[in-house]
Amino acid sequence: MNKEELFYQIKAKNSYLCIGLDSDIDKIPKHLLQEADPIFEFNKQIIDATVDYAVAYKPNLAFYESQGAKGWESLSKTMAYLPKNVFTIADAKRGDIGNSSNHYARAFFDQLNFDAITLSPYMGYDAIKPYLNYKDKWAIILALTSNESSKDFEQLLVIAEGNSLNQQELKLYEAIIDKSLTWPDNDRIMYVVGATKADELVNIRKIIPDHFLLVPGVGAQGGSLEQVSKNGMNNQCGLLVNSSRAIIFASQEQDFASAAASKAGLMQAEMKEYLEKYCI
Amino acid sequence: MNKEELFYQIKAKNSYLCIGLDSDIDKIPKHLLQEADPIFEFNKQIIDATVDYAVAYKPNLAFYESQGAKGWESLSKTMAYLPKNVFTIADAKRGDIGNSSNHYARAFFDQLNFDAITLSPYMGYDAIKPYLNYKDKWAIILALTSNESSKDFEQLLVIAEGNSLNQQELKLYEAIIDKSLTWPDNDRIMYVVGATKADELVNIRKIIPDHFLLVPGVGAQGGSLEQVSKNGMNNQCGLLVNSSRAIIFASQEQDFASAAASKAGLMQAEMKEYLEKYCI
Repeated sequence: MNKEELFYQIKAKNSYLCIGLDSDIDKIPKHLLQEADPIFEFNKQIIDATVDYAVAYKPNLAFYESQGAKGWESLSKTMAYLPKNVFTIADAKRGDIGNSSNHYARAFFDQLNFDAITLSPYMGYDAIKPYLNYKDKWAIILALTSNESSKDFEQLLVIAEGNSLNQQELKLYEAIIDKSLTWPDNDRIMYVVGATKADELVNIRKIIPDHFLLVPGVGAQGGSLEQVSKNGMNNQCGLLVNSSRAIIFASQEQDFASAAASKAGLMQAEMKEYLEKYCI
Repeated sequence: MNKEELFYQIKAKNSYLCIGLDSDIDKIPKHLLQEADPIFEFNKQIIDATVDYAVAYKPNLAFYESQGAKGWESLSKTMAYLPKNVFTIADAKRGDIGNSSNHYARAFFDQLNFDAITLSPYMGYDAIKPYLNYKDKWAIILALTSNESSKDFEQLLVIAEGNSLNQQELKLYEAIIDKSLTWPDNDRIMYVVGATKADELVNIRKIIPDHFLLVPGVGAQGGSLEQVSKNGMNNQCGLLVNSSRAIIFASQEQDFASAAASKAGLMQAEMKEYLEKYCI
């Protein structure tokens, strides 16, 4: 899916909600465990209940890989089930080089047909390039994540000569974003910025006014949807705000799908308001 | 496998060779494609032919995931086939937090029973901690990788206050190694250092004299086994030197297994010499 199509979906649904399919076998409703494929059954019902409110879905690979080959089947069936007009993100946080990256790209783009994959930038351009060769596919690079220990390395000050902010020092994640703008096909990049770091969005938008950001950490982790929207939105929205547990595990009983729909609906209603206010 | 057992195996085989099972379906000998599980058949024959020369095997997940659920089965069978006295590394380069990391640890440590997993340090301690909870298992953190674009970020100078080298600035990868020493159970960490960066090993050994290093990049990528051994070895060897393509694809014909054995044997013979010379 390209940027124009994504923005079209955002306007059509008045939503920039991404739902994280962190479909943990230990947390899905117990009555689903008797199904042949409990994780797929869970995803299917969550998708049916929330698809009017969400423009994107983001399965986190960890919860599928911990189920082995069976988990891979659940993921594959989920991808086949998702309608064509939703944007799909493999939350895989891969980061390898050369032929290994080519094979990951095959796995996620060619075979599972994801629109996007999350990637770690640590190894540099070599680890991102193979994914940028795909037209209408996206590399979503970890920049400033929502977790406590993002301060360990992501926020270290680095000596970054010749950067576009004309500063002697940048935070590592700023240096990474800045450097990535020199890479060919960088218009196929999005960036992960945690909602718990809404203040930093002002600076980030100075470096990348036009790129899309994937923003986790609203809700359970304490980020404010309004602050994120105010500081991060651009004239094509430019945001995909993710919520996982707060939606998919809103209830762990028989009513889990309607509880998820209700939570997603509340977020979408709030998003409609911010789109009118800030997407200008 | 703990450190003492690993060192025992190194002494028993006079080898610190790790063989990378980068078992690319496009590169394995064509006559194996008629087998029910060509990748497993390839791995099985490679293992049989090389196990006297290697102390460790390192499947790279990319080459299994690009085959979907079937690839996961090939990996699972390979792990079951590997003898108990070899050290096994999931070259997965994962890096996620919290419950996601817990699930990756379950996948690789509990279910596939790997001894170690490679990890990206970008997100900080949160992304490493879940793996350190496992006794006799190892988190192998990417430090200085062998690829060209390791200069993009890994080698950036960072302001690192209060580091153990008492320098105002460190390279990012040095700051990461240094910081990781403050984490509980850091004796369960190994570090990836590319063989193409053998000069840097001298400095690295000042920060971590005792930890094991996983060293890719000898052979095809141009690193020197002697330089790596001279600069990196400690009194418990402290090195696992990886070779992938140069061994497993030494021939792509019927004789691939004996060609692999021959290459592995040559490396082991060289390693025996360096163990006598530098492991003191």
